[in-house]
Amino acid sequence: MIKAFVFDAYGTLYDVQSVAGAIDAAFPGHGDYITQVWRLKQLEYSWLRSMMGRYEDFWTVTRHSLSYTLGTLGLAANEDLLAVVADAYNTLSPYADAEAALAALAGYRRAILSNGSPAMLAALVSQSRLQPHLDAVLSVDGKRAFKPDPRAYEVVQEQLGVLPDEVVFVSSNGFDVCGAKSFGFHVARIERVTPTALRQALTGSGTVGPAALFKALRSQAETCGEAADVVIGSLAELSAVPGRWADSP
Amino acid sequence: MIKAFVFDAYGTLYDVQSVAGAIDAAFPGHGDYITQVWRLKQLEYSWLRSMMGRYEDFWTVTRHSLSYTLGTLGLAANEDLLAVVADAYNTLSPYADAEAALAALAGYRRAILSNGSPAMLAALVSQSRLQPHLDAVLSVDGKRAFKPDPRAYEVVQEQLGVLPDEVVFVSSNGFDVCGAKSFGFHVARIERVTPTALRQALTGSGTVGPAALFKALRSQAETCGEAADVVIGSLAELSAVPGRWADSP
Repeated sequence: MIKAFVFDAYGTLYDVQSVAGAIDAAFPGHGDYITQVWRLKQLEYSWLRSMMGRYEDFWTVTRHSLSYTLGTLGLAANEDLLAVVADAYNTLSPYADAEAALAALAGYRRAILSNGSPAMLAALVSQSRLQPHLDAVLSVDGKRAFKPDPRAYEVVQEQLGVLPDEVVFVSSNGFDVCGAKSFGFHVARIERVTPTALRQALTGSGTVGPAALFKALRSQAETCGEAADVVIGSLAELSAVPGRWADSP
Repeated sequence: MIKAFVFDAYGTLYDVQSVAGAIDAAFPGHGDYITQVWRLKQLEYSWLRSMMGRYEDFWTVTRHSLSYTLGTLGLAANEDLLAVVADAYNTLSPYADAEAALAALAGYRRAILSNGSPAMLAALVSQSRLQPHLDAVLSVDGKRAFKPDPRAYEVVQEQLGVLPDEVVFVSSNGFDVCGAKSFGFHVARIERVTPTALRQALTGSGTVGPAALFKALRSQAETCGEAADVVIGSLAELSAVPGRWADSP
């Protein structure tokens, strides 16, 4: 029986692309490039640190990946400026469909499970309108491992008291879909970029730029093991999902 | 005392960009895009599978990442075609400075430690002129973990009989530099793209395309923990490296 919906935060409930304006204000002309490379390196560093057994929290990873990204352009930033710019990740905009989707699932336990550090998640959720619709905001931080390390997903059962088979895990991140499914959750993938839309972004104009390449690298279902049980175009479709499992309430 | 030089293969001794011609012949107009996205996803899948405990060998990872990449363009390929195209990774060109650099280190044990499966590495090395200059070609495959997972680096001591402190590990891959240094090797980083050259690639012309973005993501020293002991511009400079450690022969 499905008892809980657990959501990825960055890219699923909250739009990581919404930092671009603040970045472009700080580094004129580089908003798109920095936004994409920063996010790609942020994820990469989270994976590498997990693999190496060299965990640092996501706030550190976020500042390190920003520092790397600025360095590729020959831009330097001291710790204070890095923190100011990285704070854009604490004020991301929720997707337009997030609040109503969470409200429609009020009969279930609703939680976030995110790579974000507890302080980042507290800032993120309190500044949006999603907080009243969430029963728990869970961080992987206590496990000192990032998704898709299976240890990261253990937090759900430990903190929410639900078995993996009682959870629909919701993510638009392909690696997270693989990891959550491999762990044992039911998984709904939010397809924010359809294959057709991606193809148009890649072949429509001349050169493939940073935003299109980001979509190419991050938006499609991964060929990396497990696939989602359900693929839907937006969070709004989630309330129809439990019907997929016959033993749902 | 330095007793051995151990080399990364893909990107360090062998040029992963050398597949572009074969790719462009198979998929006209898409050679550059596919080359870059394929390599980025190949590494990503190796990391994700290691993290998830879902190891498949690098030949599988290489075909899966190619399949994903073709899919982003709406191109389909059956298993036979995937294998034919993926075989480009078994015939990569060595960098121009590789053979002479290995020859100049004849007083040391010289080995490859690579993510590549044993069959991939056997094909790669036998088709180049590097084989006579290598004492061992080591794969991570027996460990069922990819670099930078520390288990991957254990192969060196087990197979070559040298302690980490007796090894100079040589790589142009930032994640590999971090992983090897974190493991305990001395590490020489080959800087194939200088910060100045990268800056020019990123700011010289209008849009930042796939090749420039690949360089931005993969060619610079990572802000991810450990740094190399030595940074040199080419493999040719390696023979001067042991002088950095006073107890070298």
